[in-house]
Amino acid sequence: MLVNRRTVRIEWADCDMAGIVFYPRYFEMFDTSTHHLFEKAGWKKRELIREFDIVGYPMVDTRGKFLVPSTAGDDIIIETQVTEFRKSSFDVIHKVFKPDPQGEVLAIEGYETRVWVAKHPEDPSRIKSRPIPEEVIRRLSAG
Amino acid sequence: MLVNRRTVRIEWADCDMAGIVFYPRYFEMFDTSTHHLFEKAGWKKRELIREFDIVGYPMVDTRGKFLVPSTAGDDIIIETQVTEFRKSSFDVIHKVFKPDPQGEVLAIEGYETRVWVAKHPEDPSRIKSRPIPEEVIRRLSAG
Amino acid sequence: MLVNRRTVRIEWADCDMAGIVFYPRYFEMFDTSTHHLFEKAGWKKRELIREFDIVGYPMVDTRGKFLVPSTAGDDIIIETQVTEFRKSSFDVIHKVFKPDPQGEVLAIEGYETRVWVAKHPEDPSRIKSRPIPEEVIRRLSAG
Amino acid sequence: MLVNRRTVRIEWADCDMAGIVFYPRYFEMFDTSTHHLFEKAGWKKRELIREFDIVGYPMVDTRGKFLVPSTAGDDIIIETQVTEFRKSSFDVIHKVFKPDPQGEVLAIEGYETRVWVAKHPEDPSRIKSRPIPEEVIRRLSAG
Repeated sequence: MLVNRRTVRIEWADCDMAGIVFYPRYFEMFDTSTHHLFEKAGWKKRELIREFDIVGYPMVDTRGKFLVPSTAGDDIIIETQVTEFRKSSFDVIHKVFKPDPQGEVLAIEGYETRVWVAKHPEDPSRIKSRPIPEEVIRRLSAG
Repeated sequence: MLVNRRTVRIEWADCDMAGIVFYPRYFEMFDTSTHHLFEKAGWKKRELIREFDIVGYPMVDTRGKFLVPSTAGDDIIIETQVTEFRKSSFDVIHKVFKPDPQGEVLAIEGYETRVWVAKHPEDPSRIKSRPIPEEVIRRLSAG
Repeated sequence: MLVNRRTVRIEWADCDMAGIVFYPRYFEMFDTSTHHLFEKAGWKKRELIREFDIVGYPMVDTRGKFLVPSTAGDDIIIETQVTEFRKSSFDVIHKVFKPDPQGEVLAIEGYETRVWVAKHPEDPSRIKSRPIPEEVIRRLSAG
Repeated sequence: MLVNRRTVRIEWADCDMAGIVFYPRYFEMFDTSTHHLFEKAGWKKRELIREFDIVGYPMVDTRGKFLVPSTAGDDIIIETQVTEFRKSSFDVIHKVFKPDPQGEVLAIEGYETRVWVAKHPEDPSRIKSRPIPEEVIRRLSAG
């Protein structure tokens, strides 16, 4: 599968009164990482929306397992890839690593299930799942 | 002018590593307060958009003066009103008060200038300022 | 178990370009709901920290299942309770309901596992899990 | 004065239902930019706090003037510098530029006044302004 790896600086804006990242901010970072994975495959989000006439790929199920905390000034590495494509939904995994004297330490695991949706053909105020295009699957599955 | 007064509980999510509200969150609260002022005048944001065929009233200039800090668990009072209407723009003031043994203390002042905009008639990807409707001015100016 | 039920107005600040709540904001709301549950049991977060000399109850595992979207101007109801206490960790469930002509519809389920932690006795820059006090378990287990 | 210039990718997480950056997010970016300016001068925020025994440099007055909107997928450039040092407070300006066929266009101006504060010597639960250290002024004033 195609993997996107990016370094994210933890900022003052990300941290709470306990001095660590406020965990909802990790879900923001993961959302951004999924968009960056698609961008690495060739499509910024708005290009994807235009080319495939979709509304997007909204989240239906997501989970985060937090093993090691981070604070302002830390750099973390987020590694993102699709783990499975189904007809109109797909799973994503994010692994967050922190630099460490002994190499990188796994700090967080994030999981997502998203659905590929377009406007409903009969009622544009609603959405409807659609098959994920072959080209999308092909590019995101690339070694 | 019509005044909207609401109490906002400061939450853990609003505070930073220094243990006080992270100031960009106050701008979120002010934005919400402006929407609530319009709702008090009769229109939720989506109703305003539909009824007057506008895109919204985006911010062009805003300022915050922070006098007294707040932390998680505090209750603040935000008092919001329009201070001036021009042809297609208007000014809003937010005053934040904190309960105090001697009465309420002024903690923050927020200022906004917003523009009333609709889709550009010749290019719907752009926006164009439009005169603020009489009815909007009338209701928001009510004593 | 003690249940906290609160109504949350979805604001413009909560929504994304697709016109629905940006899902990381739900995790913020859930975090706040957990604090409110403890407050209903008798302790604002800062009181809990002071009384039991803890750092807090950081998140170690959280999940959200999103069934029905919401948008700015909607009111949602968040119902929160602990589902299990272990020695030094506990599970929380959040159920989000939306008003509906046929009653309330389940819109989201949120799950949390949190750990009760204090400063490490030998190294105050680190944290260490501690047994959850009997009094906390007793009050949050109240019918 | 020392100038920090950084490129920020506008993400889906930054944008609102109108499809443009939700303006409180710009204040987050500006806060981060001020920290990066200090980091360029030699101190990450936590190093600054430790070295000078301060609580930080909280905001007392900030303003944003929004000229050109941005949306998800855009890259903006934020240029940040101190414009004036006083005894215990200082002013910062942020200029946001957008790439344009004719060069860079000024999109936003941000202004900040911050105060240099430490714990109050007689009551550590309070803060007190302190003179800005010579070394800080010297490094941030460097050409």
